[in-house]
Amino acid sequence: MKVKRSDRLIDMTNFLLDHPRQLVSLPFFVQRYNSAKSSISEDLAIIKRAFKARGLGNVQTLPGAAGGVEYFPGVSPAVAREFLQALATKLADNERLLPGGYLYLSDLLGNPNDLKIIGRLIAAQYAGQKVDAVMTVATKGIPIAQSVASYLGVPFVIARRDAKITEGATVSVNYVSASSDRIQKMELSKRSLSEGANVVIVDDFMKGGGTVRGMHDLLKEFNAHLVGITVFAEANFSGQRLVQDYTSLLKVVEIDTRAAQIEVQLGNYLDKLTAAQE
Amino acid sequence: MKVKRSDRLIDMTNFLLDHPRQLVSLPFFVQRYNSAKSSISEDLAIIKRAFKARGLGNVQTLPGAAGGVEYFPGVSPAVAREFLQALATKLADNERLLPGGYLYLSDLLGNPNDLKIIGRLIAAQYAGQKVDAVMTVATKGIPIAQSVASYLGVPFVIARRDAKITEGATVSVNYVSASSDRIQKMELSKRSLSEGANVVIVDDFMKGGGTVRGMHDLLKEFNAHLVGITVFAEANFSGQRLVQDYTSLLKVVEIDTRAAQIEVQLGNYLDKLTAAQE
Repeated sequence: MKVKRSDRLIDMTNFLLDHPRQLVSLPFFVQRYNSAKSSISEDLAIIKRAFKARGLGNVQTLPGAAGGVEYFPGVSPAVAREFLQALATKLADNERLLPGGYLYLSDLLGNPNDLKIIGRLIAAQYAGQKVDAVMTVATKGIPIAQSVASYLGVPFVIARRDAKITEGATVSVNYVSASSDRIQKMELSKRSLSEGANVVIVDDFMKGGGTVRGMHDLLKEFNAHLVGITVFAEANFSGQRLVQDYTSLLKVVEIDTRAAQIEVQLGNYLDKLTAAQE
Repeated sequence: MKVKRSDRLIDMTNFLLDHPRQLVSLPFFVQRYNSAKSSISEDLAIIKRAFKARGLGNVQTLPGAAGGVEYFPGVSPAVAREFLQALATKLADNERLLPGGYLYLSDLLGNPNDLKIIGRLIAAQYAGQKVDAVMTVATKGIPIAQSVASYLGVPFVIARRDAKITEGATVSVNYVSASSDRIQKMELSKRSLSEGANVVIVDDFMKGGGTVRGMHDLLKEFNAHLVGITVFAEANFSGQRLVQDYTSLLKVVEIDTRAAQIEVQLGNYLDKLTAAQE
């Protein structure tokens, strides 16, 4: 039975959102809806326009025998700015202050609504680049990695400070946490990354950049390529960072434990996004 | 400017998928699309029908001043069965065998496509129940918890065997891992769960049920209520399990390290789903 246009639009929207950056052939939809190829093409033009109007990203159609349609999640700078400003306000709540000047983040990094937008924002930045995997280090980076990976349509891999028996053979590197000057070790399962993979590194918080640098070193051991680094928040850091080129969604400028004040600004994300979309 | 029906259907589909189990008032859409309430109601009826036809779940409209529309993610038993059978085949791949009879799962639990369906399946089971949070224990359960939480539209909270300073004050319980007879400790940040919360517990793998039982004990310390327990895979266990009522997506019947064979069957998920949807 032929499926009506309205039903096709609804199902195709769901299908494309669920399968980002995966090339779907037109014949797949022709068969799924028992509809003419010309109707499917019209549907896709409507979806492309609607997604664009809402800043949801780009629906790209490729002509020819090997062609089809591919959805690249995106975000409009205005929506990104509004979200990041609200997030900065949440992060600056002094209820987050913990002894030692640490910040409680688990509520933000355990909120799927925020995580979806964080994932979309970070993925949008890499819309024009080939990405094969997202990498992070356990534990706090995992929710971010998972969300970014779901918008990039690729797997995420997790380095660990204490690899478990369930990881099989691992490759390990030592790294220096620049903010604490301690030498630590992180491991990644050998089978989790393939040779030459293009990898985006994400993490929750960056001070001196030692942890992120450790992940980059791990990538080299796998002969993998670094596509980019994005952290949820960077802290102000007085010394020389071990990582120069990175994106941050937010920047924690100051944590004043005595006055119980946290100052948070936007990170460099919006500049990087504009550069990526130009 | 009035938004056309086709564009409304596409955007509403995206909006509802992105905001599961959140009541959205009709006036919100009326304003968003500058369209009449009657048009919005018709749109929702079309979306409801299309979602139902594809087994995506229930779009529920509530009349009256406090009314609106709420989307409850679901899955058709046929789609669930097909997915679980494919997943069982992947899990039975003897390349997963690790020394000691452990199984490598990180690829499955790092694949966003599979995780989305796993999350949808588990969430569908609790469609008729009030849920305030999803709980798991670090590290392997996190991706499952995040995916389930995103389909239930609630936060997820992570218990840890080694709580970090960034968790603030914690509540801890001791638990016995029945498969190893060791006593261990798990902690949960005090501020992560509110009194009386209704909680779904998820984990990756269950043998004797000690870890899941530990999470249940933690819930009691928070005066929280257990809504249900679902694990990705249960192992065959000869003794008395510490948990009786649970759902498993898959069941690892036997791991024969000598013959390098893994036997995997479907868990009790499909029976539980049918019961939940009746």
